[in-house]
Amino acid sequence: MRLRNKPWAEDFITAHPHIVIPNPQDYRGNWGEVFQNNNPLHIEVGTGRGQFVTEMARANPGINYLGIELYDSVIVSALENAIKAGLPNLKLLKVNGEHSAKFFQKNDVSRVYLNFSDPWPKIRHARRRLSHENFLKLYESFLIDNGEVHFKTDNRELFEFSLISMSEYGMLLKYLSLDLHVNQPKDNIMTEYEEKFSAKGHPIYRLESQFVTK
Amino acid sequence: MRLRNKPWAEDFITAHPHIVIPNPQDYRGNWGEVFQNNNPLHIEVGTGRGQFVTEMARANPGINYLGIELYDSVIVSALENAIKAGLPNLKLLKVNGEHSAKFFQKNDVSRVYLNFSDPWPKIRHARRRLSHENFLKLYESFLIDNGEVHFKTDNRELFEFSLISMSEYGMLLKYLSLDLHVNQPKDNIMTEYEEKFSAKGHPIYRLESQFVTK
Ligand SMILES: C[S@@+](CC[C@H](N)C(=O)[O-])C[C@H]1O[C@@H](n2cnc3c(N)ncnc32)[C@H](O)[C@@H]1O
Ligand SMILES: C[S@@+](CC[C@H](N)C(=O)[O-])C[C@H]1O[C@@H](n2cnc3c(N)ncnc32)[C@H](O)[C@@H]1O
Repeated sequence: MRLRNKPWAEDFITAHPHIVIPNPQDYRGNWGEVFQNNNPLHIEVGTGRGQFVTEMARANPGINYLGIELYDSVIVSALENAIKAGLPNLKLLKVNGEHSAKFFQKNDVSRVYLNFSDPWPKIRHARRRLSHENFLKLYESFLIDNGEVHFKTDNRELFEFSLISMSEYGMLLKYLSLDLHVNQPKDNIMTEYEEKFSAKGHPIYRLESQFVTK
Repeated sequence: MRLRNKPWAEDFITAHPHIVIPNPQDYRGNWGEVFQNNNPLHIEVGTGRGQFVTEMARANPGINYLGIELYDSVIVSALENAIKAGLPNLKLLKVNGEHSAKFFQKNDVSRVYLNFSDPWPKIRHARRRLSHENFLKLYESFLIDNGEVHFKTDNRELFEFSLISMSEYGMLLKYLSLDLHVNQPKDNIMTEYEEKFSAKGHPIYRLESQFVTK
């Protein structure tokens, strides 16, 4: 995600506390308060400009969506999308996904989406990949039993790494596509990166995997 | 594999009982007798014209190889290859892999290779795919503890099916490539189908997975 300098970003974000939740640690164990209902909560870590969470929230009013993004300069686009959409079941967090345990406790979340996560191709950066064992441990700590991780990417190496990492973790592979757009499922909602890379003819990889309660 | 009519095939096969073992059920639990040593045994189910097992046997003299092929008209090519190679650690079986339990018992085999197995694309034929749960059960019954299945194919749907089938079976994914020939491992030995399909530019998928002893 290219970072443009957006000095107005911080003000714009703080001016919309009902969308970009300013103090997420206050809702740990109590996200129903934010959404005013107890519907399942799905989060996307690394939401970027937010097209995916916005369209998912529009298509699935019975599910609450939280898009998590690290950068001011990127989340402002997601915020603009969210304002336009005006959906009660869509919120954003401007935080580092690595710190998720501060915001979520066991059973807070039903599903984690990872879309076109940064590939961190160097082996010495493997721990930063959002499907590294340490992140899986983190997701498991706040997911419901048998909670799921849904992952899309065009990055072959990251996808290979993720399948092995999830297998070693003991997760169960529920669904797999090694070329999502060949038989595109009707209900597939594209992310910004997905539009870009599938237009270039890259195959899009997708998996759904599940934590298995021992 | 195209089947040409080869009326001489049966005679040719029976004339080489030291390569195409005529009564494999006699060696169940005792394959060391066939190879005159107790080296690990690796089998390929659906060996076709045998290029893979032949070159593997040449490259790995400390491992015994058994290529299993259903059809006379195909296995004769593997036999010709094996005669030319003259390797003591290479044998063939003209049998149906489905009946493997007649020939192998627990601990007889260390590794199963599946290369470019017939894809059986129709759902009602899923049980014929060599990575179907029923086949995994069969392989586990004669493999050593933590025995491995190594699989290559250019067929995306079969590969997707296999990854899910193995995950559901509780197997551990050890290695994965979604485009083997991009960074072709030096020690990769190509099968006939692999040469054909990689020349056409198809990506070659490969996995190594392991049974996990409970
Ligand atoms: C390559 S972009 C993909 C964006 C979007 N998901 C898509 O598919 O179009 C990855 C995004 O993840 C964000 N990101 C990376 N690591 C993160 C982390 N630890 N916590 C939150 N966001 C992160 C980046 O800032 C970037 O916006
Ligand atoms: C598509 S060919 C691939 C041959 C070779 N492995 C390669 O990669 O070039 C599949 C082969 O598996 C054989 N085969 C299929 N099902 C089999 C079974 N149940 N037992 C033994 N051989 C089988 C077929 O006869 C055919 O020769």
